[in-house]
Amino acid sequence: MYYDEAEKLSRLEIERLQLMRLQRTLRQAAKSPFYGALFRERGVDPEKVTSLADVRRLPFTTKQDLRDSYPDRLLAMPQSEMVRMHVSSGTTGTPTVIYHTKRDLDWWASLMARCMHMVGLRKTDVFQNMSGYGLFTGGLGIHCGAEKLGCLTIPAGAGNSQRQIKLLMDFKVTGIHIIPSYALHLSTVFAGLGIDPRTLPLRIALVGAEPYTEEARRRLEAMYDMKVYNSYGLSEMNGPGVAFECQEQHGMHVWEDAYLAEIVDPQTGEPLPDGELGELVMTSLGREGMPIIRYRTRDLTRFLTGQCPCGRVHRRIDRLQGRCDDMMIVKGVNIFPMQIERILMSMPEVGQDYLIILERDGYIDNIRIKVEIREEYFVEDMRTLAVLQKRIASRLRDEILVTPRVELVEHNSLPKSDGKAARVCDRRGEGA
Amino acid sequence: MYYDEAEKLSRLEIERLQLMRLQRTLRQAAKSPFYGALFRERGVDPEKVTSLADVRRLPFTTKQDLRDSYPDRLLAMPQSEMVRMHVSSGTTGTPTVIYHTKRDLDWWASLMARCMHMVGLRKTDVFQNMSGYGLFTGGLGIHCGAEKLGCLTIPAGAGNSQRQIKLLMDFKVTGIHIIPSYALHLSTVFAGLGIDPRTLPLRIALVGAEPYTEEARRRLEAMYDMKVYNSYGLSEMNGPGVAFECQEQHGMHVWEDAYLAEIVDPQTGEPLPDGELGELVMTSLGREGMPIIRYRTRDLTRFLTGQCPCGRVHRRIDRLQGRCDDMMIVKGVNIFPMQIERILMSMPEVGQDYLIILERDGYIDNIRIKVEIREEYFVEDMRTLAVLQKRIASRLRDEILVTPRVELVEHNSLPKSDGKAARVCDRRGEGA
Repeated sequence: MYYDEAEKLSRLEIERLQLMRLQRTLRQAAKSPFYGALFRERGVDPEKVTSLADVRRLPFTTKQDLRDSYPDRLLAMPQSEMVRMHVSSGTTGTPTVIYHTKRDLDWWASLMARCMHMVGLRKTDVFQNMSGYGLFTGGLGIHCGAEKLGCLTIPAGAGNSQRQIKLLMDFKVTGIHIIPSYALHLSTVFAGLGIDPRTLPLRIALVGAEPYTEEARRRLEAMYDMKVYNSYGLSEMNGPGVAFECQEQHGMHVWEDAYLAEIVDPQTGEPLPDGELGELVMTSLGREGMPIIRYRTRDLTRFLTGQCPCGRVHRRIDRLQGRCDDMMIVKGVNIFPMQIERILMSMPEVGQDYLIILERDGYIDNIRIKVEIREEYFVEDMRTLAVLQKRIASRLRDEILVTPRVELVEHNSLPKSDGKAARVCDRRGEGA
Repeated sequence: MYYDEAEKLSRLEIERLQLMRLQRTLRQAAKSPFYGALFRERGVDPEKVTSLADVRRLPFTTKQDLRDSYPDRLLAMPQSEMVRMHVSSGTTGTPTVIYHTKRDLDWWASLMARCMHMVGLRKTDVFQNMSGYGLFTGGLGIHCGAEKLGCLTIPAGAGNSQRQIKLLMDFKVTGIHIIPSYALHLSTVFAGLGIDPRTLPLRIALVGAEPYTEEARRRLEAMYDMKVYNSYGLSEMNGPGVAFECQEQHGMHVWEDAYLAEIVDPQTGEPLPDGELGELVMTSLGREGMPIIRYRTRDLTRFLTGQCPCGRVHRRIDRLQGRCDDMMIVKGVNIFPMQIERILMSMPEVGQDYLIILERDGYIDNIRIKVEIREEYFVEDMRTLAVLQKRIASRLRDEILVTPRVELVEHNSLPKSDGKAARVCDRRGEGA
């Protein structure tokens, strides 16, 4: 039933293992120029970390730290021991680079194989990886996991939809790795060819790399008659294989034998209780070449509480709720646009767009939300609209803990720029 | 000095190993639907192959056989044992597919690592693979060899020249895999940035995938101040790692512990003596998932005679001389345009273009070659030109065994189509 022993660990065993590996990781990290200097400066002594709670006393590592350490100040072993590097696409400024030893790569592939096994893929499956290869970790990362599991792996790469479809059909592909928006696009290519994708033997899709909603998942599952599983990963922690949904499709299990995950308040850096939305902070517990301590992912999520029916006790994180950089603070409360979007999009009366306006009334911040209502719900009867308005405000307050002023507006009446809606407008700094 | 034991084998040991592995390969191949049927039909009994010379009695396998066997009639083991496939780009018609087991991939990576070690790459090297990844074997094939050898491998992929240069410089790259035409292009990008590529620590380039001349190699070596080594491979025999130059840069050693190579007359299929130009025919000796017997590569080369000073006895093939499909038969002799081109291009008086005209005079075929002469050599003195004309004809006769009629023409006087010269014009079917 399980791919490896780590999946069977109890909470106590996981924590014991984590502490041991955290200590080893800190000793290893101290060998790198970056952490060596940081630990000296902050007085961090790896030998004095004697409980998992002590992790809170360790300094954070940020994206900027990685940039400042470019190209090799985070290496904890001689460069000659490294056998691969992945480099961020570096859309802005200095890229970041992550190095791997042979052992690091083996471990990564095992974690990825474990994810794939967890959702039901086996060596008898034919697996098509529709991810770009090269420096992007979604290519080689998923590929090596699939080969390790023993699937017949097709390194299809990105794009070329006609060929993707030919491969899917000719080789009776049962598992794929695909980006949600591309899966939607591919379905239109199928339609153009007069082929119903539900007739394919395809049964499992792994998706990641892009935020998308639960509704989009269900739509994809219906379109292709397959199960779609969410993946979470980031190149700083290898890439894919960090956290993955089990067959319950309710939260992604973080592989806690390989990663120490925390959720902290993005402002204060203080740990948040389970269930509260905050920034995911990750420590690698299995990497020898380039350990990273308390990495600020800038990704927003929460730990799910309770036991997962699948039996694994590795803690689950919720679907990602966006990036910390989007966070607004209103009346002292951290609010993320994605929280608002999720509530609005779950209501059938709400149309495609909305606009969040932050205003200051004297010393008091207010949040006003203009919500487009679908044509068929935008009736003349003011009482009906008032009821809807109240219902939306109440649902939002339950989520963001602040009561917004909700204004219903007509379908397609909000301003668009570049065809895309502007979602947040902060007017608190304007005027007196 | 050597990467593995196989490099030290004597001729006798190689042949003993080849026979043993040929027998095993035939027994394995017989399990596939394609070879099972073929062997029954042709009365091939693997047990009756008792010497390497017996290979000549085995049937050939052609590209068309692979197409007809699409997708899986060449599999010699259950598909569930396969962990990867590579599919030809399939520019025309049905693609061909090559399957690999985990053991096949390990062997392939070892052969590739051996090639890289032979030209001086070590685990201390930083290696940038500028090949496209995905279904093309040059990506994953070279990548896995480099990782196996323990180089710090940068999966840069194809294109994005500015980033390629940034990686080359930031990571002090010492080895690269690159296509010759791209290496030329990249040098212009370097020039545009005001960087002299000779100042880089780069010292070794592996090139393949494209026909290019010895002169182009020397030009690249000078431009980048690095050694350039030729690679030969084809997806039907895994991909790169089939034959590779040693540091002598004189012919590519075929790894005869893994491949049985023959050179045959492309018309008759009969073996040719060492030194004669013909079609390379390859048998995989190390593949369990999908063995291929006597594959007609359509590639033209010759075995080089004599002992290589490097000490390895694995036989060397010459730089590829083009494709069989280009072959002309004149007066019963097989002639390849590349033979003529090589002679012409080695003479300083000859310009960029030439035209081969095949004519029939009664029952006798003639070959006439119009040769453009460089401006500075095209003098008024007819006697000088006549001497040059004779010298060209004589050099050509030595190579192609037929005396051509050589006509010297002025620089840029031959017809071009699409900016490219038409090289061969066969008029033997025309008129009476």
